[in-house]
Amino acid sequence: MKVITREQIQRILPGLDLLPEMERAFVAYSQGNSVVPPVGEMILDRGEVHIKYGFIREEEFYVIKIASGFYGNRALGLPSGNGMMMLFSQKTGEPEAILLDEGLLTDVRTGVAGAIAARHLAPSRVEQIGIVGTGTQARLQLSFLKQVVDCNRVLAWGPNPAGLERFRREMEAEGFHVRTTLDSAEILKRCNLVITATPSRKPILRGRDLVKGTHITAVGSDTPGKQELDPQILHRSDLVVADSLSQCRERGEIYQACRAGMIHHEQVIELGAVISGKERSRSSDDQVSVADLTGVAVQDIAIATAVFRAAGG
Amino acid sequence: MKVITREQIQRILPGLDLLPEMERAFVAYSQGNSVVPPVGEMILDRGEVHIKYGFIREEEFYVIKIASGFYGNRALGLPSGNGMMMLFSQKTGEPEAILLDEGLLTDVRTGVAGAIAARHLAPSRVEQIGIVGTGTQARLQLSFLKQVVDCNRVLAWGPNPAGLERFRREMEAEGFHVRTTLDSAEILKRCNLVITATPSRKPILRGRDLVKGTHITAVGSDTPGKQELDPQILHRSDLVVADSLSQCRERGEIYQACRAGMIHHEQVIELGAVISGKERSRSSDDQVSVADLTGVAVQDIAIATAVFRAAGG
Repeated sequence: MKVITREQIQRILPGLDLLPEMERAFVAYSQGNSVVPPVGEMILDRGEVHIKYGFIREEEFYVIKIASGFYGNRALGLPSGNGMMMLFSQKTGEPEAILLDEGLLTDVRTGVAGAIAARHLAPSRVEQIGIVGTGTQARLQLSFLKQVVDCNRVLAWGPNPAGLERFRREMEAEGFHVRTTLDSAEILKRCNLVITATPSRKPILRGRDLVKGTHITAVGSDTPGKQELDPQILHRSDLVVADSLSQCRERGEIYQACRAGMIHHEQVIELGAVISGKERSRSSDDQVSVADLTGVAVQDIAIATAVFRAAGG
Repeated sequence: MKVITREQIQRILPGLDLLPEMERAFVAYSQGNSVVPPVGEMILDRGEVHIKYGFIREEEFYVIKIASGFYGNRALGLPSGNGMMMLFSQKTGEPEAILLDEGLLTDVRTGVAGAIAARHLAPSRVEQIGIVGTGTQARLQLSFLKQVVDCNRVLAWGPNPAGLERFRREMEAEGFHVRTTLDSAEILKRCNLVITATPSRKPILRGRDLVKGTHITAVGSDTPGKQELDPQILHRSDLVVADSLSQCRERGEIYQACRAGMIHHEQVIELGAVISGKERSRSSDDQVSVADLTGVAVQDIAIATAVFRAAGG
């Protein structure tokens, strides 16, 4: 069994072309060619652990991901999130590799998924990108958008000026032209491609600020208690897309909007079906679309396999 | 993170005193001091994978075990079973160790549990030990019984003479006096401590052969389809003990006997409660008792922690 460290993974990642790999994984998922059992969960006094696992039929490996969040870690000088991914042979069950990524690959695959959602759902001409949040995931979302969107104008919202200023400097260094705002209403009013990437537990973006021709990708809400979008936004959307139809019954923006009676599950379509062309994408630049990404194990399978192959596995 | 190989584990195991550690784990489980979420399961074309995980409150680690069975492996010259255990800090979620035991620790902890059941439930004077099965687990059961039972007379049953003869030689080398039989009825007629350790899918031992004063520990039946004991045996038992009251609703001999209407779940008591004295053990040497061991994650926690500590962790 090969042990691959975070440092090795960091060296490997820039050389990978992850978007097509991840698109294939989403398509396999939506076509029923993957097996993704329910997420295992363990709640401890100081944190929580999630075990995600599954495989894509006819491929080489199955993947088990162990991810944890321990909220007292910051006080100890440790990151709150941790994680690893393991690959096993689908033929023999033998462990092939352990990727000690400490959560990095989960962050990256979420960034990649955001770019895929934008590629298939954003209006044809993006005037300005709106980013809600200034953390690691907000930075990754913007970085991966470069591969699919021809726009470097960014408006960023965050809850505090210091975080916003740091985000602005970091993203300008990556070639974006970034303005910032402390008024979240500005995001929907001025941007037609919006990404939300916060751990918020109440809506940050309001339906009353929504303008036609906008696409919103929400990546922050990965548990039943989290929410970034006013359910009115989903109610007024022409297209509501989930990475997983089954998961959006239990968590995320779609779960919240269904619970509020603002949309019905039957109108939700799956990202993999949009990618494959089985479901229609937007039919005009005036439509409003929302992609709700709660994260599915096929993404972990795709990125872990790509990293392991690049490491010589 | 420390990586501990099977060879290292094999060197560590003989120096460990596992019975008291495992007894404490069973007691913690029965007292509700452990958290053991439902087992994760994944079925592939050529095998199956189980993920067992949990922790004992106030202890240092949580443990995740990944175990697989791939039935075509033998043709490839590989063992069908494989597995690993991982320890993580309960304080921070950081991975502390990965034990690449390839299933060895699961075999051993099952052997230890059999000895614990015998210590608490066997009649005071064991005349002859009956072993049903001649595989790895049958050998381990007998080996660990040495620590708790003052009897070296063994009668072994197995489905074929070659396997029985090999078992006899191996166990005689460990100091037992072993006779063999191809008639499984002999086991219940001639032994008052009986262990069943086969993957049988239909009863091997019959109620009509049961003699008063017998204790039977069944360790083979770990899935809903497996069964080693005629439900009549449980029906006629004075004590029916499970390692896990919740698991015995879904698998094992107790599940089968309840399904057959031969016993009620309400009469089943838990091994940890017998060890702690909360539930009564046998009150006379004439009683019949059955212990049904399907395997619980606290056993994995106990043995993984003991091995890691002995490895300097």
